[in-house]
Amino acid sequence: MTSLSPVSPYDNLSPVAQAAYRARGASATLAPLPRAAKDDALLTIADALEVRTAEIVEANAKDIERAREAGTSEGIIDRLTLTPERVRAIAGDVRDVAALPDPVGEVVRGSTLPNGIDLRQVRVPLGVVGIIYEARPNVTVDAAALCLKSGNAVLLRGSSSAYESNTALVRVLRDAVHGAGLPADAVQLVPGESRDSVRELMRARGLVDVLIPRGGASLIKTVVEESTVPVIETGTGNCHVYVDAAADIDMAVDILINSKAQRPSVCNAAETLLVHRDIADAFLPRALDALAEAGVTVHADERVLGHVDKAGGSKATVVPATTEDWETEYLSHDIAAAVVDTLEQAVEHIRLWTSGHTEAIVTTSQQAARRFTQLVDSTTVAVNASTRFTDGGQFGFGAEIGISTQKLHARGPMGLPELTSTKYIVTGDGHVR
Amino acid sequence: MTSLSPVSPYDNLSPVAQAAYRARGASATLAPLPRAAKDDALLTIADALEVRTAEIVEANAKDIERAREAGTSEGIIDRLTLTPERVRAIAGDVRDVAALPDPVGEVVRGSTLPNGIDLRQVRVPLGVVGIIYEARPNVTVDAAALCLKSGNAVLLRGSSSAYESNTALVRVLRDAVHGAGLPADAVQLVPGESRDSVRELMRARGLVDVLIPRGGASLIKTVVEESTVPVIETGTGNCHVYVDAAADIDMAVDILINSKAQRPSVCNAAETLLVHRDIADAFLPRALDALAEAGVTVHADERVLGHVDKAGGSKATVVPATTEDWETEYLSHDIAAAVVDTLEQAVEHIRLWTSGHTEAIVTTSQQAARRFTQLVDSTTVAVNASTRFTDGGQFGFGAEIGISTQKLHARGPMGLPELTSTKYIVTGDGHVR
Repeated sequence: MTSLSPVSPYDNLSPVAQAAYRARGASATLAPLPRAAKDDALLTIADALEVRTAEIVEANAKDIERAREAGTSEGIIDRLTLTPERVRAIAGDVRDVAALPDPVGEVVRGSTLPNGIDLRQVRVPLGVVGIIYEARPNVTVDAAALCLKSGNAVLLRGSSSAYESNTALVRVLRDAVHGAGLPADAVQLVPGESRDSVRELMRARGLVDVLIPRGGASLIKTVVEESTVPVIETGTGNCHVYVDAAADIDMAVDILINSKAQRPSVCNAAETLLVHRDIADAFLPRALDALAEAGVTVHADERVLGHVDKAGGSKATVVPATTEDWETEYLSHDIAAAVVDTLEQAVEHIRLWTSGHTEAIVTTSQQAARRFTQLVDSTTVAVNASTRFTDGGQFGFGAEIGISTQKLHARGPMGLPELTSTKYIVTGDGHVR
Repeated sequence: MTSLSPVSPYDNLSPVAQAAYRARGASATLAPLPRAAKDDALLTIADALEVRTAEIVEANAKDIERAREAGTSEGIIDRLTLTPERVRAIAGDVRDVAALPDPVGEVVRGSTLPNGIDLRQVRVPLGVVGIIYEARPNVTVDAAALCLKSGNAVLLRGSSSAYESNTALVRVLRDAVHGAGLPADAVQLVPGESRDSVRELMRARGLVDVLIPRGGASLIKTVVEESTVPVIETGTGNCHVYVDAAADIDMAVDILINSKAQRPSVCNAAETLLVHRDIADAFLPRALDALAEAGVTVHADERVLGHVDKAGGSKATVVPATTEDWETEYLSHDIAAAVVDTLEQAVEHIRLWTSGHTEAIVTTSQQAARRFTQLVDSTTVAVNASTRFTDGGQFGFGAEIGISTQKLHARGPMGLPELTSTKYIVTGDGHVR
């Protein structure tokens, strides 16, 4: 029968499309696998990473050498570096993923219809997941582990600065997957180092089910604009802390400093402080002192500037804010600050400028908390808690493939269930309409 | 404070973007509304449609006159036509939507984290939904009602052939929404009749949260390729019926005929029949006779052709299949047919050619049913039931905005919950990391 052994519709395709086609085949094998088979592959991967640490570290040394020659900063070189200890930690993360429950097969909804048909909506893998990332080489393993656990094949496109490391890691991953009896093509590096290969990945609709870009704003913008494959946008965080008229001032200072300064380089760090006018006199001097002590520069509107002298002036590093400050994700020891007349004005400011990641309110008022959580439309709204809690690990998901800042499919920290779709199973006894 | 009354970033935008910006404002008002306020608006709409039927039918008459002058077929004119009875039925549909539960506010997940933080994932509206459609004018009202009920503002871009009807309907909808105390801009027609306005809608990322194209394959392809706004792909259905070796033959004939011929023009009608070789001798003569009786032309592979003579030959209208037949969504009294050696070969054929909508297996074997539902990856897999059950109404969703054939966000018939996103509410007592 000709229909069953046709010329592949994917012949004569680019290397990227061919890789995607092989991933598609692998995903068909992965999808119906029981949890035990997937966990077995993950544990084999973890063991292999430990056994072949020397090979990985050696490859990594080439990337580091190249980075040094290019004059890369020590901070970035530190992120790039894989030591035996770090490889061991990555292997431990893979074992943690193996220990998580399998999302595939979960019955999301189910009912018996009036005509007697049994209807079940069941989680299934997405299929082929493409990850484009600029981050540390550990993302290569993390992403592969999460995709395997959720029954997906993965196409990895890491930073060219980590090319040798990623190549070595994926070689180890593929050998282990194959050794565990699963198709090695479940884990692939996207072939080619040029921009063209990214472009081909973005146009592989029908072969790739979703693209998840993880990196800077310009990478994400490019993927969103050029991809015909559905995209999950991640990561930009212009997070706000709103100190309500009824806030506990000690709590507000703690939450502000933790949100801003505990780790300023991450997406759930706060970038703007909004203060209700009724508490400004009491709160701002304390806040400005604490920010100064934490080494934070305050980009202040006129009303905040008016409090600088009252704060003793000396310690606080305060500069006038421009409109640009309201939309800036500093990712540094900087924060924008403004006084607002009402909670509604704070909400209005947030709606206008936020990237929709995380906004916190500090208040002792039940009504204010309720109103703020109703009106603010971001992935996460925190009441009397630091913005820094928006995180898959903190939320108890065990692992995280990224934090979605879009509304479609997944919003907020994405764990294993967010790497699945669903299908309906309709079971009858010869039912017709 | 300058930040709170800035020059709008959306000034000097196109009329489409301005409409989207107004929709965004309206959606902020809709999002926190309790169910009662939304239901009140829906019932006001239903009443207004009945009270102002004459105005609607009069506008519709202009579209019909224009269509007749353009030589449009009577079938399409019938779809376009609004009679007082049909307007009454549309009003009834709106009342049905009002009676459905409100998805907004549903707690999807919730837990108390080890540190005492309360975590809740709560359904929220998507925001602004764009619908691009070619269908009957009743879609204008259906889509607006479903979006309102789920707290979303809607931008409607209907067929230019229904322009007068849609304009009248949206005028009635907006008056009613305003009369019920909600912002009229929650329901808008996309301004402009040209292709440019569709293009602008597709590029309004950040203002429009999702686009749902409903119509032919070329419309959907255009939207998928050109939109930077996230898209939910709907509707193409190259559905398969697989008759297993262990099928009950009477049941198989019933399901085949119902799947193909009960309503051939819809996306959940069957387009290909696959028959296991062990049952071909017993099943195919019966099937070919029944298909002929139903007026269906069979596009048969060689092995099916070999059974035509045994079927008495005379009645069956059978033509040889080409490769193209395997991928064709006929939407007519045509079906492709092939014999396969194994269930796995049927699955392989389906994977290669399906649009991923609905596939049915007819079998008395529990193992075969289980294997087919595990291996086939489509929105809906039916066991001993017609493909025609893939439908929001049949599934008990009460209403349907379309049938998603993609894996991201929503898959299969989309009811009210599929018009929502979620947000996390994190509640602490001053928690910091």
